Amino acid sequence: MLRTHTCGELRISDVNKTVTLSGWVQVVRDKGGIIYVDLRDRYGITQLILNENSTDANAISTARTLSREFVIQATGEVVERIAKNDKIETGDIEIKVTSLEVLNPAKLPPFLIQDETDGGDDIRMKYRYLDLRRSAVRQNLQLRHKMAQQTRIYMDAQDFIEVETPVLIKSTPEGARDFVVPSRMNPGEFYALPQSPQTFKQLLMVGGFDRYYQIVKCFRDEDLRADRQPEFTQIDCEMSFVEQEDILNMFEGLIRHLFKTVKNIDMPEVPRMTYADAMRLYGNDKPDTRFGMEFVELTDLAKGKDFPVFDSAELVVAINAKGCAEYTRKQIDELTEWMKRPQIGAKGLIYVRYNADGTLKSSVDKFYSEEDLKAWAERCGAEKGDLILIVSGEANKARKQMSELRLEMGTRLGLRNPQEFKALWVLDFPLLEYGEEEDRWFAMHHPFTSPKPEDIPLLETNLGAVRANAYDMVINGTEVGGGSVRIFQRPLQQKMFEVLGFTDEEAKKQFGFLMDAFEFGAPPHAGIAFGFDRLCSIFGGADSIRDFIAFPKNNSGRDMMIDSPSTIDAKQMDELKIKTTV
Amino acid sequence: MLRTHTCGELRISDVNKTVTLSGWVQVVRDKGGIIYVDLRDRYGITQLILNENSTDANAISTARTLSREFVIQATGEVVERIAKNDKIETGDIEIKVTSLEVLNPAKLPPFLIQDETDGGDDIRMKYRYLDLRRSAVRQNLQLRHKMAQQTRIYMDAQDFIEVETPVLIKSTPEGARDFVVPSRMNPGEFYALPQSPQTFKQLLMVGGFDRYYQIVKCFRDEDLRADRQPEFTQIDCEMSFVEQEDILNMFEGLIRHLFKTVKNIDMPEVPRMTYADAMRLYGNDKPDTRFGMEFVELTDLAKGKDFPVFDSAELVVAINAKGCAEYTRKQIDELTEWMKRPQIGAKGLIYVRYNADGTLKSSVDKFYSEEDLKAWAERCGAEKGDLILIVSGEANKARKQMSELRLEMGTRLGLRNPQEFKALWVLDFPLLEYGEEEDRWFAMHHPFTSPKPEDIPLLETNLGAVRANAYDMVINGTEVGGGSVRIFQRPLQQKMFEVLGFTDEEAKKQFGFLMDAFEFGAPPHAGIAFGFDRLCSIFGGADSIRDFIAFPKNNSGRDMMIDSPSTIDAKQMDELKIKTTV
Repeated sequence: MLRTHTCGELRISDVNKTVTLSGWVQVVRDKGGIIYVDLRDRYGITQLILNENSTDANAISTARTLSREFVIQATGEVVERIAKNDKIETGDIEIKVTSLEVLNPAKLPPFLIQDETDGGDDIRMKYRYLDLRRSAVRQNLQLRHKMAQQTRIYMDAQDFIEVETPVLIKSTPEGARDFVVPSRMNPGEFYALPQSPQTFKQLLMVGGFDRYYQIVKCFRDEDLRADRQPEFTQIDCEMSFVEQEDILNMFEGLIRHLFKTVKNIDMPEVPRMTYADAMRLYGNDKPDTRFGMEFVELTDLAKGKDFPVFDSAELVVAINAKGCAEYTRKQIDELTEWMKRPQIGAKGLIYVRYNADGTLKSSVDKFYSEEDLKAWAERCGAEKGDLILIVSGEANKARKQMSELRLEMGTRLGLRNPQEFKALWVLDFPLLEYGEEEDRWFAMHHPFTSPKPEDIPLLETNLGAVRANAYDMVINGTEVGGGSVRIFQRPLQQKMFEVLGFTDEEAKKQFGFLMDAFEFGAPPHAGIAFGFDRLCSIFGGADSIRDFIAFPKNNSGRDMMIDSPSTIDAKQMDELKIKTTV
Repeated sequence: MLRTHTCGELRISDVNKTVTLSGWVQVVRDKGGIIYVDLRDRYGITQLILNENSTDANAISTARTLSREFVIQATGEVVERIAKNDKIETGDIEIKVTSLEVLNPAKLPPFLIQDETDGGDDIRMKYRYLDLRRSAVRQNLQLRHKMAQQTRIYMDAQDFIEVETPVLIKSTPEGARDFVVPSRMNPGEFYALPQSPQTFKQLLMVGGFDRYYQIVKCFRDEDLRADRQPEFTQIDCEMSFVEQEDILNMFEGLIRHLFKTVKNIDMPEVPRMTYADAMRLYGNDKPDTRFGMEFVELTDLAKGKDFPVFDSAELVVAINAKGCAEYTRKQIDELTEWMKRPQIGAKGLIYVRYNADGTLKSSVDKFYSEEDLKAWAERCGAEKGDLILIVSGEANKARKQMSELRLEMGTRLGLRNPQEFKALWVLDFPLLEYGEEEDRWFAMHHPFTSPKPEDIPLLETNLGAVRANAYDMVINGTEVGGGSVRIFQRPLQQKMFEVLGFTDEEAKKQFGFLMDAFEFGAPPHAGIAFGFDRLCSIFGGADSIRDFIAFPKNNSGRDMMIDSPSTIDAKQMDELKIKTTV
């Protein structure tokens, strides 16, 4: 071993030991013949000291060639430091160097390797191996490792078996776009990379595995939004002989176990809310419940007073911004403009100010008496000093707009602390959603999701009203996981494909193996999958999943470091019997 | 939950409890009005009992509809069995059923779901979900799960961090054929699936991760031999600031930990052997050391006696088959024919029989005196009753042929017990091997393997003589893992690419990022990767890795169950800007 100890290991009790350390030069200082080297590795930083009057001359001259990020090996004696450094764990000691060797010199890095770096996103991605040396990045990946460890500890203790499912599978038209892989041995045919191991985990249940999980890479060829990656990781789980309630309990247990073991947080029982309530109260199927500011519907109170905007609205909905009555006209105008941006698309924003002196002032005073406004305020639970913000229009649109406003106000009021964690189950999602453009119904979750038994008759009469036995876990306004009770009987699965517009032949070609399997003794089963990258970023109190992935891709799906994707040889394409048509 | 207990859980102490079980019907017997149902799940089998005189009539009529593999739910009372079954853990009790429900009926399975099945390979692959119900298959996958668990326990305890490396990477010409993935966002360009995370783990070392591991899927588009899979799993590891010795100790530790925890076997220290010795003594770089039968070279003794075959041979090599002197002429002829098959290609097989009476008899008595044969026997350590088998010719060829014979004799003599385990390190592999066809040198391990420092000058003079700091772990004659100390300095890496026939430009285009990284402070590092599928099959005492993979592919790379690969839509190809040329 090129070291006897790591750079994070030595303490005052090691004084007088002769040790060898290896690592990177963090910084070198030469002060009047005394040379200090901060030597860094994954485990910490230890100070080396050389004195031109007493240290071996070779070591001194080597030390004078050092600069940032050189890889060196130093041998010497552990001595107590005079000026102790209580910021680092090795701060009580230093190493009086007797010999020093450069294992590998280093060019000047293109950005500073420290917590506050001067490197922009692009340069840090190109030199990701240098970015990984920054302790902030390394800590994120260590957190990820710990999350995976603790996930496995919990799942193993619950008798789940981790099973690896294939990566080279079959392309299916439902869902997002597949990445495909041409098969050389089967010319003209392609594998697809899995968007999830969905059918395989269901087949494991048919195979009697009872409890399955896997921490597994999945792939989606989507146009990348800021915080999506073409390859991502799921905690994928499935159980047999269970009902929705069993899944909720089991995986609430997982999340609480993770909070306890990774963050030392005692997460209380996870509250539950129906999709319908989440939409009504937050305009959002993944509400951020770190703060209240629930929607209050004023439609009945607001109509009939000759204010055309409200009179023509399907919904008039308000939130109460506590303590914001002192917002200036300018602030409110700015908020109104913010709401009118194309991303949100509100026509305007109505306010009612509940002044400290008890008077009420609104932007619609022309149409509503103070009495009217008081009734609104009362329904909103507003008090003196509060500001009521109101949006109206077509119900779904108004809710969506109001949801954005609520989140923005939460942020502005400092109610969304990334180190506070609020989890929520959202239940009873609609089974289907209508695609205007394609003029057909789509599975909201996926085609294997079971309708609620009592809603099955609605499959014949009112597709939009069918609720699914589906559930999402939401933490701090982000969906971290979702799943469903599955269909496990062939006739219902066939019905579902029919509803989704598959011909019999298509359904058979794509999912025949699964429907066949359902005829050979498929148990009732249900499952869930958590977005592991996202879960890690939330635990890390960060916004971006990219910081929790060792080698992420950029928004065009490029790995800047290895410069991939890239062209391939004509010979490779010949062998695969494909051609590009660019 | 659709059950209160599993089918493997109830014991005599549970008598009188009312329980609900769910599972599969293993078998139903109706004996004079008493109906017995063996109910099976992952955990075991429990007997249900119904009596047409006393059990609820609905339950009785339901029971009479049951057949194999129906999924049912039964409620009843745990009672002590009169005729106990000590072959199953629940054999002391049975369930006196009070109600019975069919959760899902089942068609007759296409093969028997029991340890000794009547299903051939193809049908079992097509209905893999049924094959998975057989306890032999499930136990293999449970073993695999345990192997992965224990690997992680060991690696975590040694401060390794599991880091996920990307699956969508860059195609490189060196090594086996890549699977490629067309990029829609970067038309005309392709990702490749990793043959191993080699460069990424080295970059993690440059990034200061110090100790990395990952249980990870890898991909090779090779023509599949009987026991290869296009996707396979590795335990992939890398360490910084280490030398070969550190790696050998660390991963010998892993293997011993696995044997102890998974098989309860105390594996002794793993012996070490150079590549040169392995070739000399076993004609094989992965010798099966469960038995001796080492090669004995007789060249000097055998030459010069006018036997033209030996006189013209570069090598005359023997093994001593203990106790085989009684082999009949017919048996020896059969063995000779076996050696002459094209797969082995020996010209013939010479034998010397050391008879029980002390006389020696050979197939070359015309040329050699009994004195001569005695000298051979002595060198071979042969005793009365032994049979010496001799092969000659060009040295490498003769060794290869003899290696096959040795393994065959080991099998015939019952010396290769799959439940006995002998591990071995093979060291000091050649760095390079010459490809006749391509008329150039290839990296025997891969281009990142470091030559032994003392052999670096030979890179200028004698490429074939350069030894690598590379090592393989062999168990029972199978390579289960291999690795090397890596090059970590740009000039040597550049030299290596030059030796392999890369132009400067090619080297830069393919591996520029790695060589750049070596200039920013790369630590000395080394690593290893274990073939996880293979390791599991050896621990399971089985020959085929396919039995240890949940959803394997066949020899044409097809998944028979989901029928993949398959054609894709023209629309998908248009979006990807590719065309097939079949």
